[in-house]
Amino acid sequence: MKGVLVSATLTLDTLFRAAFTAEDPSVELLLPEEVDDPAAIDFALAWRPQPGVLKRYPNLKVICSIAAGVDNILADPELPDVPVVRMVDPKQSEAMALFVIWHVLWYQRRFDLYLEQQAARVWQRQPQRGAAETTVAVLGLGRMGSVVARRLAGLGYPTLGWARSPRAIEGVEVLSGAEGLKQLLARTDALINLLPLTAQTRGLLDASFFARMKPGAYLIQMGRGPHLVENDLRAAIDSGHLTGASLDVFEQEPLPPDHDFWAHPRILVTPHCASDATADLVAVQTLAAARAAVAGAEIPNVVDRAAGY
Amino acid sequence: MKGVLVSATLTLDTLFRAAFTAEDPSVELLLPEEVDDPAAIDFALAWRPQPGVLKRYPNLKVICSIAAGVDNILADPELPDVPVVRMVDPKQSEAMALFVIWHVLWYQRRFDLYLEQQAARVWQRQPQRGAAETTVAVLGLGRMGSVVARRLAGLGYPTLGWARSPRAIEGVEVLSGAEGLKQLLARTDALINLLPLTAQTRGLLDASFFARMKPGAYLIQMGRGPHLVENDLRAAIDSGHLTGASLDVFEQEPLPPDHDFWAHPRILVTPHCASDATADLVAVQTLAAARAAVAGAEIPNVVDRAAGY
Repeated sequence: MKGVLVSATLTLDTLFRAAFTAEDPSVELLLPEEVDDPAAIDFALAWRPQPGVLKRYPNLKVICSIAAGVDNILADPELPDVPVVRMVDPKQSEAMALFVIWHVLWYQRRFDLYLEQQAARVWQRQPQRGAAETTVAVLGLGRMGSVVARRLAGLGYPTLGWARSPRAIEGVEVLSGAEGLKQLLARTDALINLLPLTAQTRGLLDASFFARMKPGAYLIQMGRGPHLVENDLRAAIDSGHLTGASLDVFEQEPLPPDHDFWAHPRILVTPHCASDATADLVAVQTLAAARAAVAGAEIPNVVDRAAGY
Repeated sequence: MKGVLVSATLTLDTLFRAAFTAEDPSVELLLPEEVDDPAAIDFALAWRPQPGVLKRYPNLKVICSIAAGVDNILADPELPDVPVVRMVDPKQSEAMALFVIWHVLWYQRRFDLYLEQQAARVWQRQPQRGAAETTVAVLGLGRMGSVVARRLAGLGYPTLGWARSPRAIEGVEVLSGAEGLKQLLARTDALINLLPLTAQTRGLLDASFFARMKPGAYLIQMGRGPHLVENDLRAAIDSGHLTGASLDVFEQEPLPPDHDFWAHPRILVTPHCASDATADLVAVQTLAAARAAVAGAEIPNVVDRAAGY
C-alpha cells in the first residue's frame, strides 16, 4: 500500500514515517512532492490539508485525520467522496482528562492568584474550595468528553454533561437540547468545551452563551478555535462576569504574537497541546483503515460527514 | 465544658467559636485572656502554642490540634501529660489529593514552561508525557498519604509509597525501611512528602536524599518545613539534578519576604494552603474528644507521643 501525508501546518514526516515503518515495513508513506504516480496512492493521512489537494489522488480509498477531530478535513469543499476516519485513542482521552483536571484545579484553588502572590512575595491563603463545591460540566460527550466527565465525577466533582441526544454516563447528569444547555450554564462553575466543530457548534461560545453562564464561572476551551467568539469572551471576563478562561485552541493557530490573549491576566494560553494521539496509534489505526478500505471491508471509526463528526 | 483556644500564629476565634456554638451552645471556647479560672478549663484547641502556655491549665483533660499534624504541640517541652488528639478529616485528605494532583501535572505536562512561554508570546508544544510515564511516590502513608496515593494510582500513575512498616494499599507498591527508600528514590519522577514531623524525619530531605533521587525528578513538599534542608534543595535544583519543587511548607512561616525561594524560577511557593480541616469538623472532633476525656471514656484519634504522630 501507498499513502500520502498531507499537512499544511505540521512537519510530521519523521515522526509518522518511523511509526508506520515499525508497524508495516511494506507500506510507503510519502510526502506530496515525493509522489510520482498519484494514481498509486491508496490512503491519505491528513491534518489541515489545503483545500483541493486531496482530489489529486484519483484512487484514494480512505482519508484519515491524525486527530480525533475531522473538521480540518471536512472543510475542504473539493474533498473526494471517500470515507473519512478519525483517531480513537484511549490514552489521548486520559491525557485530555488530566489536562482538564489541572485547569479545573487552577481555577478552583486559585493557583492563578498564588502565582501572582509568589511574584509579589505575598503569603496569603485563598479560601479552600472543595470539589463538592465546584460544579463542572463537559460539553460534548463523545469518546473523549465521556472519559473526561467520568474522571471528574470520580474525583468528587458534581458533574454535568451536554450532548445532542440523552445518554447515560455513571456519575454524570446528562442534559441535552437548548433547554438543557440553559440549565447547565446556570449551574456550572467550570465549563469544559469538548464539542466537535460543526455548522451547529461554530460560534456557540458567544456573548449570549456567556451571559447565561453563572457569575464567576470559568471556561476551559479544549474544542476548536471557531467554537469561540474571542471578543465576546474578552468582554465577559473584563466585565467581571466570568473569572477567566483556559484556552488551548484558537481561531488562528499558532496564536499570533500580537494577540492580546497572550497578556491577559485571566486568560491562560496553551499551544493546542492538551492531548495528541500517539504516532504509534495513528500508524496502527490508519493502516487498519487503509487495509479495510483496500479489501472492501468495514472501516472502523468512519465519521458521519453530514453530522461532521 | 470549657475550652481554651491557644494559637501563636493564627487568629481563629471567630471561625472556631461559631462552629463550636453551632455544634453545642453549652460549650464555652475562650481565648487565654478571657479565662478567669484556669482550673475550670477542660480542653485546649491548639496550633503552634507558645511553649509553656498549656501547663497553665491544671485540670486540662485533652489537647486537640486544629490539624492532622501535632508536631506543633509536641514541641512544647512543658506539655501537660494529657492525651493529644489530631483531626482526621476525609474531606481534608481529598483536598490534599487534588492539590497534589495539580502539582504532579504542573511538572508532568510542564505547565511551568507553558506559563513562561505565554509571558514571552511563544507558541511551542512540550513533549506530551503520560501518567504511565510518570512514576509518583508518596512518603508517609497515614490517613492523608494513603488517600493521596490511591487517587494518583486511580488516575493511571505508577504509584509507590513509603511507610515505616509494610502495609497493603490497592494499586500502590509500598516500600519500607532505608533500603526501600533508596529504591523508591531511584525510581520516582514526582516525589510527594506527607510524612509526620518527628525526630526521625526532621531534615530527611537533605543533600544525600536529593543525590539519590532520579535525575530530572520533582519534589512536592506538603509535610512540614523542618523536613527539608532548604539550602540543599536549592543546590539540587540549581545543579540541574532536580527539575524543580513545589513547596507548601517552610522552615519559617510565613516565608520571609526576602527569602530567595520567592523568586526561584523552578520553585513554586504556596502559603501552607494545601488543605485544612474544616471548622465544623474541628468542632465535632474536638468536642467528641473533650466529652470522652471528661467522662473517662476512650478518646478517638489520640496520637502516640513517643512516635510523634
